[in-house]
Amino acid sequence: MAGREFELIYRHLGIFGAGPQVRLGVGDDAAVLALPANSELVVSSDSVVEGTHFPEFTLPEHVATRAVAAAASDLAAMAADPLAMTLALTLPDPDELWLHSFSQGLGRCVEALSLPLVGGDLTRGPLSLTVTVMGSVPSGGALPRSGARPGDWLCVTHTLGDAAAGLALILGQLQGDDEIALEDEEFLESRFYRPTARLEWVSWLREHARGAIDISDGLLADVAHMANASGCACVIDSKAIPLSPALSRFDQKQCLDWALAGGDDYELAVAVPPNTVLPPGLIQVGEFHEGSGVQCDYIPVERVGFNHFGA
Amino acid sequence: MAGREFELIYRHLGIFGAGPQVRLGVGDDAAVLALPANSELVVSSDSVVEGTHFPEFTLPEHVATRAVAAAASDLAAMAADPLAMTLALTLPDPDELWLHSFSQGLGRCVEALSLPLVGGDLTRGPLSLTVTVMGSVPSGGALPRSGARPGDWLCVTHTLGDAAAGLALILGQLQGDDEIALEDEEFLESRFYRPTARLEWVSWLREHARGAIDISDGLLADVAHMANASGCACVIDSKAIPLSPALSRFDQKQCLDWALAGGDDYELAVAVPPNTVLPPGLIQVGEFHEGSGVQCDYIPVERVGFNHFGA
Repeated sequence: MAGREFELIYRHLGIFGAGPQVRLGVGDDAAVLALPANSELVVSSDSVVEGTHFPEFTLPEHVATRAVAAAASDLAAMAADPLAMTLALTLPDPDELWLHSFSQGLGRCVEALSLPLVGGDLTRGPLSLTVTVMGSVPSGGALPRSGARPGDWLCVTHTLGDAAAGLALILGQLQGDDEIALEDEEFLESRFYRPTARLEWVSWLREHARGAIDISDGLLADVAHMANASGCACVIDSKAIPLSPALSRFDQKQCLDWALAGGDDYELAVAVPPNTVLPPGLIQVGEFHEGSGVQCDYIPVERVGFNHFGA
Repeated sequence: MAGREFELIYRHLGIFGAGPQVRLGVGDDAAVLALPANSELVVSSDSVVEGTHFPEFTLPEHVATRAVAAAASDLAAMAADPLAMTLALTLPDPDELWLHSFSQGLGRCVEALSLPLVGGDLTRGPLSLTVTVMGSVPSGGALPRSGARPGDWLCVTHTLGDAAAGLALILGQLQGDDEIALEDEEFLESRFYRPTARLEWVSWLREHARGAIDISDGLLADVAHMANASGCACVIDSKAIPLSPALSRFDQKQCLDWALAGGDDYELAVAVPPNTVLPPGLIQVGEFHEGSGVQCDYIPVERVGFNHFGA
């Protein structure tokens, strides 16, 4: 991009690049990072595209928080400590107001997730973002999705289904949504716009878990990935799935549909050895078994995944 | 993306993920990589967007080679050994034929540049790619663009201007281009479609160079970045700039314009101490001085940069 546009991005985003492990941040051909001794690098790239992953009227600061949290969630699922991120941003027009709001969301993520922004690219085109997150694990200590064993418990880190309900509200897809209390609506929408990457679980997971995955496509779909990778079956008990008070105001069947098949919560699904003493906040929702496939008491297993909105 | 699309990308791109430093490749929440002992991570993300960085009729295999070579060129400019890459690919429609051609280009890059593809994302939307390349340098050994000192020589790694001429030919912007020999046309166009990331210079640079940058925006613009970052001035001798035989068939002024202001060659501009014995292939084209700014014998310095085609 030309000079003025370089200036714009540096002014807005260049301030987020400092961190204890950053040897060289934004402004050179590449960034340089120091990993902790005896560690391995964990890396994941995620893209979000306007109209596919978020509605066109989404506030820029929510665009940023959702994209970064979704990417950082992959670090949590690997039990990795955050190191840094890069951001490739494609914008129809480098708009100062847009960048200002975007950088507010981004700044909060940088701070809350300890992910300095060390590089990236700004190009002109239809709005999309690619966030690449980097983290570190003690050598050999990454938590794969393939680690579940028959008998292991399946746990989740928080209530499920909120983000899917939030998105339905945002898109005005719910009949009678004027009866929903404003605070419930705000809670559910914020679970879509500002998902929480569960990095606070990293040290516990490293010590106790055998496998993990972040729930981006819906519990059934992501647990199926985990079960397949682990060569196990998994049985989910739908009654055990934690539902938020806000979500519980909806029809029970609709709630479970969101909790099982709705994506975008970015909570973690975790396999732990049976009889692990679960800390507050970690809720058992199923069990791994010999065999293959995912069963849920009354939802057919083929009803998995989440097709975003209409995509 | 839904199941069938996952299958498509794994079938086409999942085969490129192996490498000596890859502990865990595509298929988990994130990849895991082992860096060499006592090294630092070098990372850079670059996006290319159809219509901005390459014409809409570009062959998918050229889309891949250009995007990966451009990103890998940043590793060369930092004197980093290649480690791995991730690819975020946004496609209007996951098309098997497109992915087949694309994966052929990608596969050649993975092999030629020793950059296994360890992760990424496939999303639906207007065609764009973000390539994140990772490399390693001995701790403290990254080559910044800020390292040039007054008296240092400015050198380049190959002929310049070819890619800009190639793009003009591709776009049919040259009058009388039917008089150009087919082999010259093919050479120039291949310099645009298949730029060479100069990773073969990494070990020499590490031993001898003080600073480097890859030439993506044009020699004048990129040397200006280098001079500014180094707190130096730089004087370029246009007569010393190496021009390919194919380029030299064009009008002299046009040639120099491409060589000075045309981007996309992805050669390296390198600062070395004066009187360094230059190995074959490294050509001195200027000198750093006290002061600021870039001068070129007869081209005004404000004439810098390259706005892609009409963007």
